[in-house]
Amino acid sequence: MNTLGHLLRLTTFGESHGPAVGGVLDGFPAGFKPDFEKVNLWNARRRPGSTSLGTRREEADVPEFLSGLQDGLTNGAPLAFLLRNTDQRPQDYAGLRHKFRPSHADFTYFKKYGLMPAPGGGRASARETAVRVTAGALALQWLAAKGVGIRAWTEQIGAIRWTAGDNWPEEEAIYATESRCPDPHSDEAMRHLVQALREKGDSIGGTVRCVVTGLPPGLGEPVYGKLTALLAMALWSINAVKGLDFGAGFEAVDHTGSALNDLFETDGLKVVTRTNHSGGIQGGISNGMPLVFRVLFKPPSTLARPQETLDLSGQKTTIEGRGRHDPCVVPRAVPVVVATTALVLMDAWLMHQARYPEFFYPQSPAFPHATG
Amino acid sequence: MNTLGHLLRLTTFGESHGPAVGGVLDGFPAGFKPDFEKVNLWNARRRPGSTSLGTRREEADVPEFLSGLQDGLTNGAPLAFLLRNTDQRPQDYAGLRHKFRPSHADFTYFKKYGLMPAPGGGRASARETAVRVTAGALALQWLAAKGVGIRAWTEQIGAIRWTAGDNWPEEEAIYATESRCPDPHSDEAMRHLVQALREKGDSIGGTVRCVVTGLPPGLGEPVYGKLTALLAMALWSINAVKGLDFGAGFEAVDHTGSALNDLFETDGLKVVTRTNHSGGIQGGISNGMPLVFRVLFKPPSTLARPQETLDLSGQKTTIEGRGRHDPCVVPRAVPVVVATTALVLMDAWLMHQARYPEFFYPQSPAFPHATG
Amino acid sequence: MNTLGHLLRLTTFGESHGPAVGGVLDGFPAGFKPDFEKVNLWNARRRPGSTSLGTRREEADVPEFLSGLQDGLTNGAPLAFLLRNTDQRPQDYAGLRHKFRPSHADFTYFKKYGLMPAPGGGRASARETAVRVTAGALALQWLAAKGVGIRAWTEQIGAIRWTAGDNWPEEEAIYATESRCPDPHSDEAMRHLVQALREKGDSIGGTVRCVVTGLPPGLGEPVYGKLTALLAMALWSINAVKGLDFGAGFEAVDHTGSALNDLFETDGLKVVTRTNHSGGIQGGISNGMPLVFRVLFKPPSTLARPQETLDLSGQKTTIEGRGRHDPCVVPRAVPVVVATTALVLMDAWLMHQARYPEFFYPQSPAFPHATG
Amino acid sequence: MNTLGHLLRLTTFGESHGPAVGGVLDGFPAGFKPDFEKVNLWNARRRPGSTSLGTRREEADVPEFLSGLQDGLTNGAPLAFLLRNTDQRPQDYAGLRHKFRPSHADFTYFKKYGLMPAPGGGRASARETAVRVTAGALALQWLAAKGVGIRAWTEQIGAIRWTAGDNWPEEEAIYATESRCPDPHSDEAMRHLVQALREKGDSIGGTVRCVVTGLPPGLGEPVYGKLTALLAMALWSINAVKGLDFGAGFEAVDHTGSALNDLFETDGLKVVTRTNHSGGIQGGISNGMPLVFRVLFKPPSTLARPQETLDLSGQKTTIEGRGRHDPCVVPRAVPVVVATTALVLMDAWLMHQARYPEFFYPQSPAFPHATG
Repeated sequence: MNTLGHLLRLTTFGESHGPAVGGVLDGFPAGFKPDFEKVNLWNARRRPGSTSLGTRREEADVPEFLSGLQDGLTNGAPLAFLLRNTDQRPQDYAGLRHKFRPSHADFTYFKKYGLMPAPGGGRASARETAVRVTAGALALQWLAAKGVGIRAWTEQIGAIRWTAGDNWPEEEAIYATESRCPDPHSDEAMRHLVQALREKGDSIGGTVRCVVTGLPPGLGEPVYGKLTALLAMALWSINAVKGLDFGAGFEAVDHTGSALNDLFETDGLKVVTRTNHSGGIQGGISNGMPLVFRVLFKPPSTLARPQETLDLSGQKTTIEGRGRHDPCVVPRAVPVVVATTALVLMDAWLMHQARYPEFFYPQSPAFPHATG
Repeated sequence: MNTLGHLLRLTTFGESHGPAVGGVLDGFPAGFKPDFEKVNLWNARRRPGSTSLGTRREEADVPEFLSGLQDGLTNGAPLAFLLRNTDQRPQDYAGLRHKFRPSHADFTYFKKYGLMPAPGGGRASARETAVRVTAGALALQWLAAKGVGIRAWTEQIGAIRWTAGDNWPEEEAIYATESRCPDPHSDEAMRHLVQALREKGDSIGGTVRCVVTGLPPGLGEPVYGKLTALLAMALWSINAVKGLDFGAGFEAVDHTGSALNDLFETDGLKVVTRTNHSGGIQGGISNGMPLVFRVLFKPPSTLARPQETLDLSGQKTTIEGRGRHDPCVVPRAVPVVVATTALVLMDAWLMHQARYPEFFYPQSPAFPHATG
Repeated sequence: MNTLGHLLRLTTFGESHGPAVGGVLDGFPAGFKPDFEKVNLWNARRRPGSTSLGTRREEADVPEFLSGLQDGLTNGAPLAFLLRNTDQRPQDYAGLRHKFRPSHADFTYFKKYGLMPAPGGGRASARETAVRVTAGALALQWLAAKGVGIRAWTEQIGAIRWTAGDNWPEEEAIYATESRCPDPHSDEAMRHLVQALREKGDSIGGTVRCVVTGLPPGLGEPVYGKLTALLAMALWSINAVKGLDFGAGFEAVDHTGSALNDLFETDGLKVVTRTNHSGGIQGGISNGMPLVFRVLFKPPSTLARPQETLDLSGQKTTIEGRGRHDPCVVPRAVPVVVATTALVLMDAWLMHQARYPEFFYPQSPAFPHATG
Repeated sequence: MNTLGHLLRLTTFGESHGPAVGGVLDGFPAGFKPDFEKVNLWNARRRPGSTSLGTRREEADVPEFLSGLQDGLTNGAPLAFLLRNTDQRPQDYAGLRHKFRPSHADFTYFKKYGLMPAPGGGRASARETAVRVTAGALALQWLAAKGVGIRAWTEQIGAIRWTAGDNWPEEEAIYATESRCPDPHSDEAMRHLVQALREKGDSIGGTVRCVVTGLPPGLGEPVYGKLTALLAMALWSINAVKGLDFGAGFEAVDHTGSALNDLFETDGLKVVTRTNHSGGIQGGISNGMPLVFRVLFKPPSTLARPQETLDLSGQKTTIEGRGRHDPCVVPRAVPVVVATTALVLMDAWLMHQARYPEFFYPQSPAFPHATG
């Protein structure tokens, strides 16, 4: 289960403190010319050290592509790539290998696989998300060529929340701040909060808001491959995710149907809805309105303060993080949400196109859903 | 994409107003003796008419099994079953077939498939959940034989919320109320709220809380088949689901890591955690503590009041529901959440057992994760 | 593993002597108008009693469709259908339930599932092929609308062989004979052979030749989804199949590369090959030439004569078939090969179309493989 | 579709003349200690230059493992590995890039992907089989620890055939000859034949026989995942495969059922069959007898002599191979057949174990199929 997707399939491998992490992206159509500068840009936005709020581990994170390219074009064969691990410090984990770190995957990996994870979490490390960002950056370009844009930003860290309303921020504004919250005041408050917690050896969570524009209606495969379901599965595979809602979400739990229904109208060219409480999806299928969802990330479990725990023999002990961990993963999770969303949407696009190519090629003999 | 699962696979079919809905449950181990009374009980809890808060459609919903059984035992072949649709009233939908019902799947199905859904929503109808409940009732029995129990109840309808704390209600208490909220005061308030909205032709949503006890550590297949991810995908395929969180969830967004970390300790027999903010899952794998999550359902979109919309030709029109729809789906969603969870957990169990059978057969030659 | 296919997925269920067999065909594109007369015709060609060479069991085998249709058109939802079992004679199997029939699946099912199969083979019965023929008849029509034709016929029964050379027979000629071998002299010899073996209580195998015309180049997904591999998997799931070869096959094992290479030339319109020893596939992808392969069927294992065997307790015993079994399955296997091939090819078509829709919609912006 | 398997999944990547080929083997159980010397030995048996009958390309083919190992044990995470391409000679292909090599994948890749394959065949090159051998060598060790042995050898090259009867050769005898045919006389004849064809610039095919001993009954997942079907799909993904038969196969096409039925008897300990015409599989499930099958390989299509063909513009031209190609792939295919078979059988084992762990852990509470 280290493979994500159906027609666009990403298989990932590698552990935080092995020689490399990497991936194999299978099913990417031939004849596409990737812009590797942009792939590197996305990796730079995610990599450790990219924001002062995160870990101080330094990784260059420039992927090496091993296959699937010919004269700069994808050739239909699987795209394999490596990201070398260069800044490993196993000494940060010395003495920890026989202790279960609280709320980490040590205990569950031990129970599942019969082995303690390697230092730094092994396969459970968020280092896997670098692979996802690399592959997602390719999917993002493919979608962009179709007119689809994906933006995500930090909406909340701790109690500090900024809501964009309908003025979704531009990518430049998002990545101009350390917190990836495009509002300067909120950014400042978030930075102060994280800094204060870092000093106390504590940590904090938050939410990422994601908006997708330009998506055609029709994506998603009911009933078990609803677009919401596909996104939910993929997003929930990101480390530290604990919640997800679409559109109006949990906060509208006390709103009535008459308040939440999105009425259809026409903008002169096509059918739109007056409001978008549905978040762009009805019946599990995109409706052509912006896709809107929110992802909850828990606080990192590694704390720079002593915590009680057990060791492998079941004896009580204490543990204290010494690694270069994030007091808050939310800013670095922003590009991971974008990349994961891109992988799912491109896959959903290919699945829809498999059966309804005329939707995308409307100059072909008329078909009702090819119009408007 | 009408198939759910990996080793236990449910394929469903059928539309709300066709002759029948049904399913094929493949991969169920041979030699199990299902209790069909219990299957019927779960269907009775879900079926239309089971609670006064829901639709008044009447369906007996007693499944007819066509295969996979021999002398009352499963025989390893796929279990196929039908649920006949008996109380169809297409006249309720007369005149609606050319209008897009707001926030329904009419528009998206039309854009995807080029055809308006059949009256009542066709494949998009929640009638599909009857199939899921039938199959899930079998998985539930298989899990019960392993000591796993799944309980779900209504936690919130509109603004009325009841939280169980650590005293999770018994199944009898849950199904003794119309709202499926086991607290009598909350139940009464919920019933009044729904009744008031029914009279206004309006509708309301809410949340279902689900708790799973007795689950062994080790279930879930990182990184893309994390137990959270598998559950998220399956739960999001239920009609009207708009949100999900595990453990402490969205409400703990402003809590720090030191407040949320679950410290390990021993109960004398095995490793437990002092708190369960993780909701029983760490690193995507069950940790042996109760699995706890919450599912958000939106208000039904069909309103017994006029709403503006468009017809197929793009002309403005109005629409008013006349079917026997639910003003609130939450009570009937409770058994659907249980059934869906059972299907996912049994599938995850088989996946874990495929590679680590000694985990479940600890009398076999010693293996580190077979202990404790 | 009762599901075949990737984007067009057939899930089958049912046992020979239960109430019904049936299937769920998922992924069939919406908006297609099936000709159910043709579906019935294919079932008639396969059903017991369709040829005097086969079993004398009588089944009407007219499928009942339960879902996936709207106003006579496919609607994108799964197509479910039942074939009722009407002519069961469990008395034919009385006294056999504790004996392992030689070369049948009794022993292996018992070892795998812990239960003896139901009378008549249960899930292992060739009755499953009726489901495949029903679904395949729909795929066949879809392919026919694209210009693809699939023909299969009996090439050999026992030592009697007829080779078509390049004059592939028409469907009418094939189904005009009892043996499904279109050559009258060979048909007569085959009938006499089978009749003689029937009188001796013995049985015989043979081969089916299949030719597909009109297939575009490009189908098949290297490296593990080569068109040969997809066909091989599907064909080998047919009961009694023991061999398969493509193109020149086993008989050309002593031919050199210079004799077997298919040289490219042009027929004025498109690229063709001078010979077709490759059988229409190179590198696992269709090359636009006719697809040609041969399937080997073993003799039926049920003999109307005593055979030594063991019973469940391991004691020696004898067994003698009394059912209405085929002395030769080859004639009835002919439509099963056609149907299975149709399901695979339509699936491969959708998979190719998913990534290269412009191949099928060449009026779209030019792309090298969209031409010629 | 560059992934093979269900619970043990091999994803491969890389092209003949890129920097590396490699694979990701997912689902291998944790806690297994691979012997990497044996992995290297299998690669040595397959690698170019391993036998004088094959290509003279030289590749060291020692895989570099990047993940999935911890202290020499598998840790449950995916095993990724690379095989660097070191002996590339693109000059051998100079001037060929615009010509379709007859019976190669150039034309079909061009039609499918819109691009000519890279020199040497790109993804269509048999270099992919090195990845399969590496992964298969791990599966082979896992199976060996369960008592399963897989042997394959050259049975036929051109018209020269040696049949082992029931005295299956030992691995040492097989790899002691250049032809991988353990019979010295046949080996000599085969070498002379290949040498003579090499001098003429021609090529030849043949067959590989494979026998698996020690396999328990019960493997295979009817009806579409029959063990035969799983093996057929995997074997047919090997380059140049054109035929496959199990047990008595095509040569017994004129034998009657009474001659081919395998009668059950007991060897005092367990149920066996007197003969093994079924090749160890009945009803698609292993029966505990040796698995026996034969794979047909066509002659290599690259000839060191001029052949007519077309170029990309459709003009007639000639082509002549200058690379270091094999006049016969059969000897080098022998370890590829072994490795592919090992991957399928380990996957089938895990699938069976998923549902019937007690089969493999018979000391657990009694279950009928756990005995005998």
